[in-house]
Amino acid sequence: MARNSSHTAGLRVQLPLLCLLFQAAIVILFSFFVRYNHETDSSLWHQSNHSIMDNDFYFRYPSFQDVHTMIFIGFGFLMTFLQRYGFSSIGFNFLLSAFSLQWSTLVQGFLHSFHEGKIYIGVESMINADFCTGAVLISFGAVLGKTSPVQLLLMSLLEVTLFGINEFILLNLLGVKDAGGSMTIHTFGAYFGLVLSRVLYRSQLDKSKHREGSVYHSDLFAMIGTIFLWIFWPSFNSAITHTGDGQHRTALNTYYSLGASTLSTFALSALLNREGKLDMVHIQNAALAGGVVVGTSAEMMITPFGALVAGFLAGTISTLGYKFLMPILESKFKVQDTCGVHNLHGMPGVLGALLGALVAALATHQTYGEGLEKIFPLVAKGHRSATSQAVYQLLGLFVTLVLASLGGGIGGLLLKLPCLSSPPDSQCYEDQIYWEVPLEHEDEVQGHLRSEDTETQA
Amino acid sequence: MARNSSHTAGLRVQLPLLCLLFQAAIVILFSFFVRYNHETDSSLWHQSNHSIMDNDFYFRYPSFQDVHTMIFIGFGFLMTFLQRYGFSSIGFNFLLSAFSLQWSTLVQGFLHSFHEGKIYIGVESMINADFCTGAVLISFGAVLGKTSPVQLLLMSLLEVTLFGINEFILLNLLGVKDAGGSMTIHTFGAYFGLVLSRVLYRSQLDKSKHREGSVYHSDLFAMIGTIFLWIFWPSFNSAITHTGDGQHRTALNTYYSLGASTLSTFALSALLNREGKLDMVHIQNAALAGGVVVGTSAEMMITPFGALVAGFLAGTISTLGYKFLMPILESKFKVQDTCGVHNLHGMPGVLGALLGALVAALATHQTYGEGLEKIFPLVAKGHRSATSQAVYQLLGLFVTLVLASLGGGIGGLLLKLPCLSSPPDSQCYEDQIYWEVPLEHEDEVQGHLRSEDTETQA
Amino acid sequence: MARNSSHTAGLRVQLPLLCLLFQAAIVILFSFFVRYNHETDSSLWHQSNHSIMDNDFYFRYPSFQDVHTMIFIGFGFLMTFLQRYGFSSIGFNFLLSAFSLQWSTLVQGFLHSFHEGKIYIGVESMINADFCTGAVLISFGAVLGKTSPVQLLLMSLLEVTLFGINEFILLNLLGVKDAGGSMTIHTFGAYFGLVLSRVLYRSQLDKSKHREGSVYHSDLFAMIGTIFLWIFWPSFNSAITHTGDGQHRTALNTYYSLGASTLSTFALSALLNREGKLDMVHIQNAALAGGVVVGTSAEMMITPFGALVAGFLAGTISTLGYKFLMPILESKFKVQDTCGVHNLHGMPGVLGALLGALVAALATHQTYGEGLEKIFPLVAKGHRSATSQAVYQLLGLFVTLVLASLGGGIGGLLLKLPCLSSPPDSQCYEDQIYWEVPLEHEDEVQGHLRSEDTETQA
Repeated sequence: MARNSSHTAGLRVQLPLLCLLFQAAIVILFSFFVRYNHETDSSLWHQSNHSIMDNDFYFRYPSFQDVHTMIFIGFGFLMTFLQRYGFSSIGFNFLLSAFSLQWSTLVQGFLHSFHEGKIYIGVESMINADFCTGAVLISFGAVLGKTSPVQLLLMSLLEVTLFGINEFILLNLLGVKDAGGSMTIHTFGAYFGLVLSRVLYRSQLDKSKHREGSVYHSDLFAMIGTIFLWIFWPSFNSAITHTGDGQHRTALNTYYSLGASTLSTFALSALLNREGKLDMVHIQNAALAGGVVVGTSAEMMITPFGALVAGFLAGTISTLGYKFLMPILESKFKVQDTCGVHNLHGMPGVLGALLGALVAALATHQTYGEGLEKIFPLVAKGHRSATSQAVYQLLGLFVTLVLASLGGGIGGLLLKLPCLSSPPDSQCYEDQIYWEVPLEHEDEVQGHLRSEDTETQA
Repeated sequence: MARNSSHTAGLRVQLPLLCLLFQAAIVILFSFFVRYNHETDSSLWHQSNHSIMDNDFYFRYPSFQDVHTMIFIGFGFLMTFLQRYGFSSIGFNFLLSAFSLQWSTLVQGFLHSFHEGKIYIGVESMINADFCTGAVLISFGAVLGKTSPVQLLLMSLLEVTLFGINEFILLNLLGVKDAGGSMTIHTFGAYFGLVLSRVLYRSQLDKSKHREGSVYHSDLFAMIGTIFLWIFWPSFNSAITHTGDGQHRTALNTYYSLGASTLSTFALSALLNREGKLDMVHIQNAALAGGVVVGTSAEMMITPFGALVAGFLAGTISTLGYKFLMPILESKFKVQDTCGVHNLHGMPGVLGALLGALVAALATHQTYGEGLEKIFPLVAKGHRSATSQAVYQLLGLFVTLVLASLGGGIGGLLLKLPCLSSPPDSQCYEDQIYWEVPLEHEDEVQGHLRSEDTETQA
Repeated sequence: MARNSSHTAGLRVQLPLLCLLFQAAIVILFSFFVRYNHETDSSLWHQSNHSIMDNDFYFRYPSFQDVHTMIFIGFGFLMTFLQRYGFSSIGFNFLLSAFSLQWSTLVQGFLHSFHEGKIYIGVESMINADFCTGAVLISFGAVLGKTSPVQLLLMSLLEVTLFGINEFILLNLLGVKDAGGSMTIHTFGAYFGLVLSRVLYRSQLDKSKHREGSVYHSDLFAMIGTIFLWIFWPSFNSAITHTGDGQHRTALNTYYSLGASTLSTFALSALLNREGKLDMVHIQNAALAGGVVVGTSAEMMITPFGALVAGFLAGTISTLGYKFLMPILESKFKVQDTCGVHNLHGMPGVLGALLGALVAALATHQTYGEGLEKIFPLVAKGHRSATSQAVYQLLGLFVTLVLASLGGGIGGLLLKLPCLSSPPDSQCYEDQIYWEVPLEHEDEVQGHLRSEDTETQA
């Protein structure tokens, strides 16, 4: 009880303090550094004689809104599958995203678009901020239900920063292509979260086992997330590819890859069940792997056939991962991966990076024509051979894995600081410790609590 | 029990087999026949000197995303109204759509855009693939809860093929106009499904009567589907109309037609209830009839006034259909129409086709100006009179009804093949035979099962 | 019982009558007055030699679809938080919106775009019709659960009319800027609804107290509404701002303002709770205040820093309002504000109007460059000083408050007409009196009803 009230005190003090502190810092940094770019600023835009169509807004904003929907509705509802953690899933998703998109504007701005002491922002930086937020939410999926909002905000602070650095190394220093983020978003977010979850390993987590599953309607809420992620993934991968054939081809490839991953997921899910029944966990997650796996290559000339094959493989390995690898990850490697992000983002992300390297190695002037300069500018200009581009792509994957693992490790140690309380083993996956929950539900929980060991963990 | 385990074996073998077989066949066919079109291919696009705005992507993709949302969220959630069939509704909707959009790319490609041995694809073919998927989902609505996923996949295989043929006859051979698919999508999908349902008639279906209704929250989930269909229908009807005034006018007409059908649905629903209470079935479905009824004519000069009148009539007949016609269809005609697709898609689709013919008959150079060539090219070029165009429109309706009925009949016989098991009469509208269902729900069902006749139907 | 059956009769007669009457009147008025504008009419559009990109459809329609989603999904689901009022929340939201958008087309048309006896419509008028609908739905939020659909339709009839007049005075007569509607939509809708709720004050409302709260899943449904409002608010504020930098800047400012209001809402919500727990009411509502507060100023050069500060303040005062002001409003001022629209739309709307005046006062040629003519045309042309523009902005706020209060008062008297029955005090927030409710739920309610005073109120 004493510990419980310190937990309460921690919540009441630390969460508001962190929110206000972070927001205040961001406000101050914005006032010094952040400015409208030439397409957003009234004075700058009207200095030259444009057609309205020169404003990138009209080529990017519809994609941005789809990405925005994926981040807040897609990821948010996907995680509401837990029977008693819906408020936290959608609520913390909301909080982390609202923070990360602001913080990421600064981090990415300092690294990518810092000119004469100022960061210039517009629709493309908004998309990039949302992308970075996506990586944070993937990591959130790995530790869902076992961390406090204070811990999660600190995780976001660190992860957004490292995401920016990793992205800078890949895109700016190594000249790697990764428009849909197989590496920068999915691989990075997944392994950051998995290593973090490893450091935070709880041997007594089965005390909350009865709450780890879903109920009927929570699975339907989760399907809202799944389907919105699925339908808008073509926009995600194409949001910052080059205009014209680039966005067009990227959207089309992603569309077909997702179709194929959905069929292979249904096939595998029924095949692996002893009664031939489908498993909602697979459908909610593995069917999306087709979007992840073409994150790097969808803007390239992978052909519609290639997109289908990639999606098919991704759905297959993802479903196999949920069935066979996930239990091993927990029992042997002590990684408790609540949402199975290793299966949805980790393995398909790595596969997507490898596929990107392969497709880069096959790039020729003949296949891409004059468009080669848009997709592989260094190859087009003769600074690199296609093979060498492929090697850089692999190097990008390696850097991502190293930085994500390091980051997750540091993050885990940070989150174990004694001043930060996390939910006790017996109260994981439980909204009630962070939210005012309507009575009907609270009653039910109280019943459970009486019959439980209510020991508290620092 | 013996039969039950054969049912299980069927599921475990047939569903994966069919998914893998279909996907493999599609992959092979794509590798031989499907190529990026000139707006999607890097080399082709950069051969000529374009403005980015020449790429159709920017005129179609926002509409495509709305259509995509309607197919996967709209249709999917609309069917979750059943109390114990939410997983199947949203899940099979997902599976059938992911298959149909791929298969339809091939069928429509062979029929509409087969040049020198190749099918060329881009955003317009993606929209058309989604449109065809819409027809499949309408038919799915008629047999919802009474068919296995294996049966449904076979139905989709057949229906997509016939849809392509019907569409080819109407648009290419007869020169019929039907941009929003009153005939090709709604009438075709509805009567295909209704005849199919007739062939699969179950005299003992009342054994599952207690599961045929909704529960409070399942009706709210269904409203997610309803509202997304309603708000994005203007994009559906305008997605492939001609750019400029065509898309603009089509969206506007649909917007007002839907407004009017909503008001007439609320009016009729309260009027027809002895206590003046509203019925969720009407609101969820009949309010949408305004979108169906202007599917053919929304791109024409029906005037805003005409759009309102059309929508008003559609909402009225659809609600009357739910109240009076549906019971008769089951008792007299042995058509068990789970979602009432006859009321939402069948009658309003036919009405929409007739309206299209009427508006075509009234077309003049004066009303359309130079735009006549876009809407009625054969009339503009003097190859046809307006009256003759109207006759062709009616002929298109006739062909659609014949092909849909034939197709539904053949489909029904196919689905009755002895090797295909369908859910037993006592287990219709029940997720548990196809899905791992969370315990809380399963318990409840087991209780019911104990007190039921559990005879199995081949 | 006698009264109850008169209530039933009222429903069965009045609701259909009103729907049919309103729809018939609208159809007739449309036939006389409403025409396609030059971008929607086939003949007019093809008279001149355009590029397709001259059609405003491509600059406005994606924004329109986002606004449309906010109106029907956003507002609709936001109000489903009540445990037994989900059908009414989403259903009446649907009905009122479908009516208001038609009626508003006429009212706004007569006032804003009446040329030679005709109203010309297109995508911009559709957006404006949806905007007006937004104001009606805000007022609906104040009286949610305590009014019949007949009363609500009459309220909409009046409010749409007054909304049009107020908007005409502000935009056309006073030259006030308010693109995102801090004044015309949020302030107007909120104070209209609050005064209306004051006139309809029920001293015995605690008889329905047990139904006023949420249940676990109803709060999740409400979050669908919250998040869709949140993600698409940048489109709402930018939907009718000028093309190019205007839409771009408005969307960007709103994006950051919402981020900041979300962080301040989480901070305040935890801080104000004695156990440090978060309150779903705050998260669902106050987090959105950042969109309201920049409604007037988001198109101006408020800088990203300014957007953050505005959002931060709005989230703060909104959360404080829910915690401290709302109980006082009810106990002292007899305003029963079901959804707390005073906190989400009222105060942040007024704050947004003041902010708009402040930013207008600071406008200079230097900051806006040639763009000044787009944002403050009267200032750019020298007809007004910036200070004088600010005074007009304040005058606009004053007019809005007066007209909204007058309108709400008249509306309240209208809704108290003896021929209009409203739900009895003991049956507020209850779907069952207006809807056929699935049995499971009805049973539960019947239980409650037996133990209740079932007196009926005229």
